[in-house]
Amino acid sequence: MKRYRVKPGSKVDLKEWDPNDRTEFKESKEEGKQMLLPLNQKIDELQELLYAEHRHKVLIVLQAMDTGGKDGTIRNVFEGVNPQGVHIVSFKKPTLDELDRDYLWRVHRHVPGKGEIVVFNRSHYEDVLVVRVHELVPKEVWNQRYEQINNFERMLAEEGTIILKFYLHIDKDEQAQRLQERLDDPQKRWKFNPGDLEERKLWPEYLNAYEDVLSKTSTEWAPWYIVPANRKWYRNLVVATTLIEALEDLNMKFPDAPEEWSKIRIES
Amino acid sequence: MKRYRVKPGSKVDLKEWDPNDRTEFKESKEEGKQMLLPLNQKIDELQELLYAEHRHKVLIVLQAMDTGGKDGTIRNVFEGVNPQGVHIVSFKKPTLDELDRDYLWRVHRHVPGKGEIVVFNRSHYEDVLVVRVHELVPKEVWNQRYEQINNFERMLAEEGTIILKFYLHIDKDEQAQRLQERLDDPQKRWKFNPGDLEERKLWPEYLNAYEDVLSKTSTEWAPWYIVPANRKWYRNLVVATTLIEALEDLNMKFPDAPEEWSKIRIES
Repeated sequence: MKRYRVKPGSKVDLKEWDPNDRTEFKESKEEGKQMLLPLNQKIDELQELLYAEHRHKVLIVLQAMDTGGKDGTIRNVFEGVNPQGVHIVSFKKPTLDELDRDYLWRVHRHVPGKGEIVVFNRSHYEDVLVVRVHELVPKEVWNQRYEQINNFERMLAEEGTIILKFYLHIDKDEQAQRLQERLDDPQKRWKFNPGDLEERKLWPEYLNAYEDVLSKTSTEWAPWYIVPANRKWYRNLVVATTLIEALEDLNMKFPDAPEEWSKIRIES
Repeated sequence: MKRYRVKPGSKVDLKEWDPNDRTEFKESKEEGKQMLLPLNQKIDELQELLYAEHRHKVLIVLQAMDTGGKDGTIRNVFEGVNPQGVHIVSFKKPTLDELDRDYLWRVHRHVPGKGEIVVFNRSHYEDVLVVRVHELVPKEVWNQRYEQINNFERMLAEEGTIILKFYLHIDKDEQAQRLQERLDDPQKRWKFNPGDLEERKLWPEYLNAYEDVLSKTSTEWAPWYIVPANRKWYRNLVVATTLIEALEDLNMKFPDAPEEWSKIRIES
Protein backbone atom coordinates (compact mmCIF):
# COMPACT_ATOMS: atom_id res chain seq x y z
CA MET A 1 0.00 0.00 0.00
CA LYS A 2 3.10 2.20 -0.35
CA ARG A 3 1.40 4.22 -3.09
CA TYR A 4 -0.95 5.81 -0.56
CA ARG A 5 1.78 6.72 1.89
CA VAL A 6 2.67 10.42 2.03
CA LYS A 7 6.41 10.73 1.57
CA PRO A 8 7.84 12.63 4.56
CA GLY A 9 8.64 16.18 3.62
CA SER A 10 6.53 16.18 0.45
CA LYS A 11 3.90 18.82 -0.27
CA VAL A 12 0.41 17.36 -0.56
CA ASP A 13 -2.10 18.72 -3.06
CA LEU A 14 -5.29 16.74 -2.53
CA LYS A 15 -6.47 17.49 -6.07
CA GLU A 16 -3.77 15.09 -7.21
CA TRP A 17 -5.12 12.25 -5.06
CA ASP A 18 -8.10 10.51 -6.64
CA PRO A 19 -10.77 9.50 -4.09
CA ASN A 20 -12.07 7.01 -6.67
CA ASP A 21 -8.70 5.37 -7.26
CA ARG A 22 -8.80 1.55 -7.37
CA THR A 23 -5.35 0.63 -8.57
CA GLU A 24 -4.70 -1.93 -5.84
CA PHE A 25 -7.96 -3.84 -6.10
CA LYS A 26 -9.57 -4.01 -9.50
CA GLU A 27 -12.29 -6.38 -8.39
CA SER A 28 -15.99 -5.62 -8.43
CA LYS A 29 -17.70 -4.18 -5.37
CA GLU A 30 -19.11 -7.59 -4.46
CA GLU A 31 -15.77 -9.34 -4.85
CA GLY A 32 -14.09 -6.54 -2.90
CA LYS A 33 -16.49 -6.99 -0.02
CA GLN A 34 -15.77 -10.72 0.05
CA MET A 35 -12.04 -10.09 0.17
CA LEU A 36 -12.29 -8.31 3.50
CA LEU A 37 -13.24 -11.40 5.50
CA PRO A 38 -9.87 -13.20 5.31
CA LEU A 39 -8.18 -9.90 6.15
CA ASN A 40 -10.29 -9.60 9.32
CA GLN A 41 -9.15 -13.09 10.27
CA LYS A 42 -5.53 -12.22 9.56
CA ILE A 43 -5.78 -9.11 11.77
CA ASP A 44 -7.29 -11.23 14.52
CA GLU A 45 -4.34 -13.63 14.34
CA LEU A 46 -1.79 -10.84 14.31
CA GLN A 47 -3.50 -9.15 17.23
CA GLU A 48 -3.20 -12.33 19.28
CA LEU A 49 0.49 -12.52 18.46
CA LEU A 50 0.92 -8.87 19.39
CA TYR A 51 -0.76 -9.53 22.71
CA ALA A 52 1.25 -12.66 23.41
CA GLU A 53 4.58 -11.10 22.54
CA HIS A 54 3.77 -8.08 24.73
CA ARG A 55 6.38 -5.89 23.13
CA HIS A 56 4.98 -3.53 20.52
CA LYS A 57 2.21 -0.98 20.86
CA VAL A 58 0.06 -0.03 17.87
CA LEU A 59 -1.66 3.30 17.41
CA ILE A 60 -3.98 3.94 14.49
CA VAL A 61 -5.24 7.46 13.82
CA LEU A 62 -8.35 7.98 11.67
CA GLN A 63 -9.22 11.39 10.31
CA ALA A 64 -11.69 12.45 7.64
CA MET A 65 -14.18 15.09 6.64
CA ASP A 66 -17.72 14.57 7.97
CA THR A 67 -19.26 11.41 6.46
CA GLY A 68 -15.75 10.34 5.41
CA GLY A 69 -16.31 6.91 6.91
CA LYS A 70 -14.36 6.71 10.15
CA ASP A 71 -17.06 4.75 11.99
CA GLY A 72 -17.63 2.43 9.05
CA THR A 73 -13.92 1.74 8.68
CA ILE A 74 -13.62 0.79 12.34
CA ARG A 75 -16.64 -1.48 12.19
CA ASN A 76 -15.55 -3.23 9.03
CA VAL A 77 -11.81 -3.53 9.52
CA PHE A 78 -12.00 -4.79 13.10
CA GLU A 79 -15.01 -7.03 12.68
CA GLY A 80 -14.12 -10.44 14.06
CA VAL A 81 -11.06 -9.18 15.90
CA ASN A 82 -11.02 -9.93 19.63
CA PRO A 83 -12.53 -6.78 21.14
CA GLN A 84 -10.33 -7.18 24.22
CA GLY A 85 -7.28 -6.51 22.09
CA VAL A 86 -8.50 -3.41 20.27
CA HIS A 87 -9.53 -0.22 22.00
CA ILE A 88 -11.40 2.45 20.08
CA VAL A 89 -11.16 5.95 21.51
CA SER A 90 -13.41 8.65 20.07
CA PHE A 91 -12.50 12.25 20.71
CA LYS A 92 -15.41 14.65 20.81
CA LYS A 93 -15.59 18.31 21.70
CA PRO A 94 -13.15 18.80 24.58
CA THR A 95 -14.46 19.13 28.13
CA LEU A 96 -13.60 22.13 30.33
CA ASP A 97 -10.98 20.03 32.13
CA GLU A 98 -9.41 19.13 28.81
CA LEU A 99 -9.46 22.72 27.57
CA ASP A 100 -7.62 23.74 30.73
CA ARG A 101 -4.65 21.63 29.69
CA ASP A 102 -2.56 21.18 26.57
CA TYR A 103 -4.35 19.47 23.67
CA LEU A 104 -2.10 16.40 23.85
CA TRP A 105 -3.12 15.70 27.44
CA ARG A 106 -6.34 13.93 26.61
CA VAL A 107 -4.88 11.85 23.82
CA HIS A 108 -1.70 10.83 25.63
CA ARG A 109 -3.66 9.11 28.39
CA HIS A 110 -5.22 6.77 25.82
CA VAL A 111 -2.10 5.66 23.94
CA PRO A 112 -1.67 1.88 23.65
CA GLY A 113 0.28 -0.18 26.15
CA LYS A 114 2.46 -3.12 25.14
CA GLY A 115 0.47 -5.70 23.20
CA GLU A 116 -2.42 -3.33 22.52
CA ILE A 117 -3.99 -1.81 19.42
CA VAL A 118 -5.66 1.55 19.97
CA VAL A 119 -7.67 3.33 17.29
CA PHE A 120 -8.19 7.07 17.59
CA ASN A 121 -11.50 8.09 15.98
CA ARG A 122 -10.50 11.73 15.50
CA SER A 123 -7.44 12.76 17.46
CA HIS A 124 -5.00 15.52 18.38
CA TYR A 125 -5.14 16.48 14.69
CA GLU A 126 -8.47 18.18 15.36
CA ASP A 127 -6.36 20.79 17.18
CA VAL A 128 -4.88 21.87 13.85
CA LEU A 129 -8.08 21.24 11.86
CA VAL A 130 -11.37 22.35 13.40
CA VAL A 131 -9.46 24.56 15.85
CA ARG A 132 -7.67 26.25 12.98
CA VAL A 133 -10.66 26.56 10.67
CA HIS A 134 -12.82 28.07 13.40
CA GLU A 135 -9.94 30.17 14.81
CA LEU A 136 -10.42 28.78 18.32
CA VAL A 137 -6.83 29.69 19.17
CA PRO A 138 -4.55 32.28 17.52
CA LYS A 139 -2.41 31.25 14.57
CA GLU A 140 0.83 31.47 16.63
CA VAL A 141 -0.59 28.76 18.84
CA TRP A 142 -1.86 26.24 16.28
CA ASN A 143 1.06 26.87 14.00
CA GLN A 144 3.57 25.51 16.52
CA ARG A 145 1.53 22.37 17.00
CA TYR A 146 2.76 20.57 13.88
CA GLU A 147 6.24 20.36 15.35
CA GLN A 148 4.87 19.51 18.79
CA ILE A 149 2.85 16.68 17.28
CA ASN A 150 5.83 15.35 15.36
CA ASN A 151 7.91 15.39 18.54
CA PHE A 152 5.17 13.71 20.54
CA GLU A 153 4.68 10.95 17.99
CA ARG A 154 8.41 10.51 17.66
CA MET A 155 8.72 9.97 21.40
CA LEU A 156 5.93 7.38 21.26
CA ALA A 157 7.67 5.63 18.36
CA GLU A 158 11.06 5.68 20.09
CA GLU A 159 9.40 4.17 23.13
CA GLY A 160 8.03 1.29 21.07
CA THR A 161 4.82 2.41 19.34
CA ILE A 162 3.96 1.67 15.72
CA ILE A 163 1.89 4.58 14.42
CA LEU A 164 -0.31 4.48 11.30
CA LYS A 165 -2.38 7.49 10.31
CA PHE A 166 -5.18 7.31 7.75
CA TYR A 167 -6.88 10.22 6.04
CA LEU A 168 -10.06 8.86 4.47
CA HIS A 169 -10.30 10.88 1.30
CA ILE A 170 -13.74 11.60 -0.16
CA ASP A 171 -14.74 14.42 -2.46
CA LYS A 172 -17.42 17.04 -1.96
CA ASP A 173 -19.95 15.32 -4.23
CA GLU A 174 -19.60 12.11 -2.29
CA GLN A 175 -20.24 14.01 0.93
CA ALA A 176 -23.39 15.56 -0.58
CA GLN A 177 -24.66 12.13 -1.49
CA ARG A 178 -23.93 10.67 1.94
CA LEU A 179 -25.58 13.55 3.76
CA GLN A 180 -28.62 13.18 1.52
CA GLU A 181 -28.76 9.46 2.32
CA ARG A 182 -28.76 10.26 6.01
CA LEU A 183 -31.73 12.54 5.54
CA ASP A 184 -33.61 10.12 3.32
CA ASP A 185 -33.14 7.00 5.45
CA PRO A 186 -35.26 7.02 8.64
CA GLN A 187 -32.73 4.66 10.26
CA LYS A 188 -29.85 6.97 9.55
CA ARG A 189 -31.56 10.30 10.09
CA TRP A 190 -30.40 10.48 13.72
CA LYS A 191 -26.83 10.78 12.49
CA PHE A 192 -27.62 14.02 10.69
CA ASN A 193 -26.66 17.23 12.41
CA PRO A 194 -27.71 20.60 10.96
CA GLY A 195 -24.22 21.81 11.91
CA ASP A 196 -22.84 19.47 9.23
CA LEU A 197 -24.17 21.85 6.57
CA GLU A 198 -22.34 24.77 8.15
CA GLU A 199 -19.14 22.72 8.22
CA ARG A 200 -19.70 21.74 4.60
CA LYS A 201 -19.55 25.42 3.62
CA LEU A 202 -16.04 25.44 5.03
CA TRP A 203 -14.92 22.58 2.76
CA PRO A 204 -12.10 24.60 1.11
CA GLU A 205 -10.77 25.73 4.48
CA TYR A 206 -10.77 22.17 5.79
CA LEU A 207 -9.13 20.90 2.63
CA ASN A 208 -6.43 23.48 3.12
CA ALA A 209 -5.94 22.54 6.74
CA TYR A 210 -5.77 18.83 5.82
CA GLU A 211 -3.18 19.51 3.17
CA ASP A 212 -1.01 21.21 5.77
CA VAL A 213 -1.45 18.32 8.19
CA LEU A 214 -0.55 15.76 5.55
CA SER A 215 2.42 17.79 4.34
CA LYS A 216 3.86 18.67 7.74
CA THR A 217 3.20 15.61 9.87
CA SER A 218 3.86 12.60 7.67
CA THR A 219 7.09 11.29 9.14
CA GLU A 220 9.19 8.14 8.96
CA TRP A 221 7.99 7.24 12.44
CA ALA A 222 4.31 8.12 11.90
CA PRO A 223 3.35 8.22 8.22
CA TRP A 224 0.03 9.38 6.81
CA TYR A 225 -1.85 7.28 4.27
CA ILE A 226 -4.31 9.01 1.99
CA VAL A 227 -7.00 6.38 1.45
CA PRO A 228 -9.28 6.66 -1.60
CA ALA A 229 -12.57 6.53 0.27
CA ASN A 230 -15.40 7.28 -2.16
CA ARG A 231 -15.82 3.51 -2.44
CA LYS A 232 -16.31 2.08 1.04
CA TRP A 233 -15.22 -1.47 0.20
CA TYR A 234 -12.02 -0.18 -1.38
CA ARG A 235 -11.27 2.03 1.60
CA ASN A 236 -11.71 -0.93 3.96
CA LEU A 237 -9.35 -3.11 1.93
CA VAL A 238 -6.66 -0.42 1.87
CA VAL A 239 -6.80 0.22 5.60
CA ALA A 240 -6.89 -3.48 6.50
CA THR A 241 -4.04 -4.37 4.16
CA THR A 242 -1.87 -1.48 5.36
CA LEU A 243 -2.37 -2.58 8.95
CA ILE A 244 -1.55 -6.21 8.11
CA GLU A 245 1.61 -5.19 6.27
CA ALA A 246 2.75 -3.08 9.23
CA LEU A 247 2.08 -5.87 11.73
CA GLU A 248 3.82 -8.46 9.57
CA ASP A 249 6.87 -6.21 9.34
CA LEU A 250 7.28 -6.60 13.09
CA ASN A 251 8.28 -10.26 12.71
CA MET A 252 6.55 -11.11 15.93
CA LYS A 253 6.94 -14.47 17.66
CA PHE A 254 5.00 -16.26 20.35
CA PRO A 255 7.09 -16.26 23.54
CA ASP A 256 9.20 -19.35 24.08
CA ALA A 257 7.84 -21.84 26.54
CA PRO A 258 10.00 -24.69 27.85
CA GLU A 259 9.92 -27.78 25.62
CA GLU A 260 9.24 -30.00 28.68
CA TRP A 261 5.90 -28.30 29.22
CA SER A 262 4.55 -30.27 26.29
CA LYS A 263 5.05 -33.43 28.37
CA ILE A 264 3.01 -32.19 31.30
CA ARG A 265 -0.19 -34.18 31.73
CA ILE A 266 -2.77 -32.45 33.89
CA GLU A 267 -4.45 -34.83 36.31
CA SER A 268 -8.18 -34.66 36.44
CA MET B 1 17.78 33.79 42.49
CA LYS B 2 19.36 33.90 39.03
CA ARG B 3 22.66 32.70 40.44
CA TYR B 4 21.23 29.22 40.99
CA ARG B 5 19.74 28.93 37.54
CA VAL B 6 21.58 26.61 35.16
CA LYS B 7 22.31 28.52 31.99
CA PRO B 8 20.82 26.59 29.05
CA GLY B 9 23.53 24.79 27.14
CA SER B 10 26.12 25.04 29.91
CA LYS B 11 28.00 22.03 31.23
CA VAL B 12 27.33 21.42 34.92
CA ASP B 13 30.08 20.17 37.24
CA LEU B 14 28.44 19.74 40.64
CA LYS B 15 31.79 20.08 42.41
CA GLU B 16 31.62 23.76 41.46
CA TRP B 17 28.24 24.22 43.18
CA ASP B 18 28.56 24.63 46.95
CA PRO B 19 25.72 22.90 48.84
CA ASN B 20 26.57 25.15 51.81
CA ASP B 21 26.37 28.38 49.83
CA ARG B 22 24.46 31.19 51.55
CA THR B 23 25.15 34.18 49.36
CA GLU B 24 21.53 35.25 49.08
CA PHE B 25 20.59 35.06 52.74
CA LYS B 26 23.34 35.82 55.21
CA GLU B 27 21.04 35.67 58.21
CA SER B 28 21.33 33.18 61.05
CA LYS B 29 19.40 29.93 60.97
CA GLU B 30 16.78 31.33 63.35
CA GLU B 31 16.32 34.52 61.36
CA GLY B 32 16.21 32.50 58.16
CA LYS B 33 13.41 30.35 59.51
CA GLN B 34 11.42 33.44 60.46
CA MET B 35 11.83 34.87 56.98
CA LEU B 36 9.91 32.00 55.43
CA LEU B 37 6.55 32.94 56.94
CA PRO B 38 5.91 36.09 54.89
CA LEU B 39 7.00 34.19 51.80
CA ASN B 40 4.37 31.52 52.48
CA GLN B 41 1.77 34.27 52.70
CA LYS B 42 3.00 35.82 49.47
CA ILE B 43 2.74 32.46 47.69
CA ASP B 44 -0.77 32.06 49.04
CA GLU B 45 -1.76 35.45 47.60
CA LEU B 46 -0.15 34.74 44.25
CA GLN B 47 -1.83 31.35 44.10
CA GLU B 48 -5.22 32.97 44.57
CA LEU B 49 -4.46 35.40 41.78
CA LEU B 50 -3.33 32.53 39.56
CA TYR B 51 -6.57 30.71 40.26
CA ALA B 52 -8.73 33.79 39.67
CA GLU B 53 -7.00 34.75 36.44
CA HIS B 54 -7.33 31.15 35.18
CA ARG B 55 -4.72 31.59 32.51
CA HIS B 56 -1.32 30.23 33.49
CA LYS B 57 -0.41 26.75 34.66
CA VAL B 58 2.53 26.20 37.01
CA LEU B 59 4.59 23.04 37.18
CA ILE B 60 7.31 22.59 39.79
CA VAL B 61 9.66 19.62 39.56
CA LEU B 62 11.63 18.54 42.63
CA GLN B 63 14.53 16.15 42.34
CA ALA B 64 17.25 15.22 44.83
CA MET B 65 19.38 12.40 46.13
CA ASP B 66 17.83 10.37 48.96
CA THR B 67 17.40 12.55 52.08
CA GLY B 68 17.89 15.60 49.86
CA GLY B 69 14.79 17.21 51.34
CA LYS B 70 12.00 16.99 48.76
CA ASP B 71 9.30 16.24 51.34
CA GLY B 72 10.56 18.92 53.72
CA THR B 73 10.68 21.52 50.96
CA ILE B 74 7.08 20.81 49.99
CA ARG B 75 5.88 20.96 53.60
CA ASN B 76 7.72 24.18 54.37
CA VAL B 77 7.30 26.16 51.15
CA PHE B 78 3.58 25.45 50.76
CA GLU B 79 2.62 25.71 54.41
CA GLY B 80 -0.29 28.12 54.68
CA VAL B 81 -1.05 28.00 50.97
CA ASN B 82 -4.62 26.98 50.11
CA PRO B 83 -4.31 23.22 49.60
CA GLN B 84 -7.05 23.35 46.96
CA GLY B 85 -4.75 25.36 44.73
CA VAL B 86 -1.65 23.20 45.01
CA HIS B 87 -1.50 19.56 43.99
CA ILE B 88 1.44 17.44 45.04
CA VAL B 89 2.06 14.36 42.91
CA SER B 90 4.61 11.82 44.11
CA PHE B 91 5.99 9.37 41.61
CA LYS B 92 7.04 6.03 43.05
CA LYS B 93 8.18 2.85 41.36
CA PRO B 94 6.08 2.53 38.18
CA THR B 95 3.17 0.09 38.08
CA LEU B 96 2.90 -2.61 35.41
CA ASP B 97 0.40 -0.47 33.52
CA GLU B 98 2.82 2.43 33.58
CA LEU B 99 5.76 0.29 32.46
CA ASP B 100 3.67 -0.86 29.49
CA ARG B 101 3.58 2.70 28.18
CA ASP B 102 6.09 5.45 27.54
CA TYR B 103 7.61 7.01 30.67
CA LEU B 104 5.94 10.39 30.03
CA TRP B 105 2.47 8.83 30.08
CA ARG B 106 2.11 8.81 33.84
CA VAL B 107 3.47 12.31 34.32
CA HIS B 108 1.53 13.94 31.50
CA ARG B 109 -1.80 13.02 33.07
CA HIS B 110 -0.90 15.02 36.17
CA VAL B 111 0.25 18.29 34.57
CA PRO B 112 -1.45 21.43 35.90
CA GLY B 113 -4.59 22.90 34.36
CA LYS B 114 -5.16 26.63 34.08
CA GLY B 115 -4.94 28.33 37.45
CA GLU B 116 -3.24 25.36 39.12
CA ILE B 117 0.12 24.74 40.75
CA VAL B 118 1.33 21.14 40.56
CA VAL B 119 4.45 19.93 42.34
CA PHE B 120 6.12 16.77 41.09
CA ASN B 121 7.89 14.98 43.96
CA ARG B 122 10.24 13.01 41.71
CA SER B 123 9.23 13.01 38.06
CA HIS B 124 10.01 11.86 34.54
CA TYR B 125 13.63 12.64 35.37
CA GLU B 126 13.82 9.36 37.28
CA ASP B 127 13.73 7.77 33.83
CA VAL B 128 17.19 9.16 33.11
CA LEU B 129 18.42 8.81 36.71
CA VAL B 130 17.54 5.61 38.58
CA VAL B 131 16.68 3.93 35.26
CA ARG B 132 20.10 4.84 33.89
CA VAL B 133 22.09 4.03 37.02
CA HIS B 134 20.46 0.62 37.38
CA GLU B 135 20.48 -0.02 33.61
CA LEU B 136 16.75 -0.74 33.54
CA VAL B 137 16.64 0.09 29.82
CA PRO B 138 19.51 0.08 27.28
CA LYS B 139 21.59 3.21 26.81
CA GLU B 140 20.08 3.85 23.31
CA VAL B 141 16.72 4.17 24.99
CA TRP B 142 17.52 6.47 27.92
CA ASN B 143 19.93 8.50 25.87
CA GLN B 144 17.20 9.75 23.54
CA ARG B 145 15.06 10.80 26.48
CA TYR B 146 16.82 14.10 27.15
CA GLU B 147 15.61 15.45 23.82
CA GLN B 148 12.18 13.89 24.29
CA ILE B 149 11.91 15.57 27.69
CA ASN B 150 12.98 18.94 26.30
CA ASN B 151 10.37 18.63 23.53
CA PHE B 152 7.67 17.58 25.98
CA GLU B 153 8.39 20.45 28.36
CA ARG B 154 8.60 22.86 25.47
CA MET B 155 5.14 21.83 24.29
CA LEU B 156 3.80 22.35 27.81
CA ALA B 157 5.42 25.79 27.96
CA GLU B 158 4.13 26.79 24.52
CA GLU B 159 0.67 25.74 25.64
CA GLY B 160 0.87 28.04 28.68
CA THR B 161 2.76 26.27 31.47
CA ILE B 162 5.43 27.90 33.62
CA ILE B 163 7.97 25.23 34.54
CA LEU B 164 10.46 25.48 37.40
CA LYS B 165 12.79 22.59 38.19
CA PHE B 166 14.76 22.35 41.42
CA TYR B 167 17.65 20.06 42.15
CA LEU B 168 18.14 20.08 45.92
CA HIS B 169 21.89 19.81 46.23
CA ILE B 170 23.35 18.11 49.30
CA ASP B 171 26.74 16.48 49.67
CA LYS B 172 27.58 12.95 50.68
CA ASP B 173 28.52 13.87 54.26
CA GLU B 174 25.19 15.59 54.73
CA GLN B 175 23.43 12.49 53.50
CA ALA B 176 25.39 10.33 55.96
CA GLN B 177 24.31 12.59 58.79
CA ARG B 178 20.65 12.57 57.73
CA LEU B 179 20.55 8.80 57.35
CA GLN B 180 22.16 8.44 60.79
CA GLU B 181 19.53 10.77 62.25
CA ARG B 182 16.80 8.60 60.81
CA LEU B 183 18.29 5.56 62.50
CA ASP B 184 18.83 7.31 65.81
CA ASP B 185 15.41 8.92 66.12
CA PRO B 186 12.63 6.43 66.93
CA GLN B 187 10.10 8.80 65.30
CA LYS B 188 12.03 8.92 62.06
CA ARG B 189 13.26 5.35 61.93
CA TRP B 190 10.31 4.27 59.78
CA LYS B 191 11.63 6.44 56.97
CA PHE B 192 14.84 4.42 56.81
CA ASN B 193 15.08 1.81 54.12
CA PRO B 194 18.03 -0.59 53.99
CA GLY B 195 17.99 -0.07 50.22
CA ASP B 196 19.11 3.52 50.86
CA LEU B 197 22.56 2.22 51.77
CA GLU B 198 22.81 0.36 48.48
CA GLU B 199 21.80 3.50 46.62
CA ARG B 200 24.36 5.48 48.62
CA LYS B 201 27.13 3.26 47.22
CA LEU B 202 26.08 4.47 43.78
CA TRP B 203 26.56 8.15 44.74
CA PRO B 204 29.16 8.83 41.99
CA GLU B 205 26.92 7.24 39.33
CA TYR B 206 23.94 9.31 40.46
CA LEU B 207 26.05 12.46 40.55
CA ASN B 208 27.10 11.77 37.02
CA ALA B 209 23.53 11.16 35.89
CA TYR B 210 22.39 14.37 37.61
CA GLU B 211 25.14 16.36 35.92
CA ASP B 212 23.89 15.12 32.55
CA VAL B 213 20.30 15.98 33.43
CA LEU B 214 21.25 19.48 34.55
CA SER B 215 23.49 20.06 31.52
CA LYS B 216 21.10 18.70 28.89
CA THR B 217 17.66 19.69 30.11
CA SER B 218 18.00 23.20 31.50
CA THR B 219 16.20 25.25 28.86
CA GLU B 220 14.80 28.75 28.47
CA TRP B 221 11.32 27.30 28.82
CA ALA B 222 12.07 24.95 31.73
CA PRO B 223 15.21 25.93 33.63
CA TRP B 224 16.87 23.95 36.40
CA TYR B 225 17.85 25.62 39.67
CA ILE B 226 20.60 24.02 41.72
CA VAL B 227 19.55 24.78 45.28
CA PRO B 228 22.20 24.69 48.03
CA ALA B 229 20.40 22.29 50.35
CA ASN B 230 22.72 21.29 53.16
CA ARG B 231 20.97 23.97 55.21
CA LYS B 232 17.26 23.28 55.18
CA TRP B 233 16.15 26.83 56.02
CA TYR B 234 18.32 28.22 53.23
CA ARG B 235 16.96 25.69 50.73
CA ASN B 236 13.40 26.66 51.64
CA LEU B 237 14.08 30.37 51.17
CA VAL B 238 15.67 29.81 47.77
CA VAL B 239 12.81 27.67 46.46
CA ALA B 240 10.10 29.97 47.85
CA THR B 241 11.76 33.11 46.51
CA THR B 242 12.34 31.59 43.07
CA LEU B 243 8.70 30.61 42.86
CA ILE B 244 7.54 34.07 43.96
CA GLU B 245 9.78 35.76 41.40
CA ALA B 246 8.42 33.53 38.64
CA LEU B 247 4.81 34.19 39.63
CA GLU B 248 5.37 37.93 39.91
CA ASP B 249 6.88 37.96 36.43
CA LEU B 250 3.50 36.86 35.09
CA ASN B 251 1.95 40.26 35.92
CA MET B 252 -1.31 38.61 36.77
CA LYS B 253 -4.51 40.55 37.33
CA PHE B 254 -7.82 39.69 38.91
CA PRO B 255 -10.43 39.42 36.16
CA ASP B 256 -12.43 42.58 35.50
CA ALA B 257 -15.87 42.64 36.96
CA PRO B 258 -18.41 45.30 35.94
CA GLU B 259 -18.08 48.46 38.03
CA GLU B 260 -21.88 48.43 38.64
CA TRP B 261 -21.58 45.21 40.58
CA SER B 262 -20.19 47.21 43.47
CA LYS B 263 -23.57 48.90 43.78
CA ILE B 264 -25.51 45.67 44.08
CA ARG B 265 -27.04 45.25 47.52
CA ILE B 266 -28.08 41.72 48.28
CA GLU B 267 -31.44 41.53 50.02
CA SER B 268 -31.57 39.37 53.09
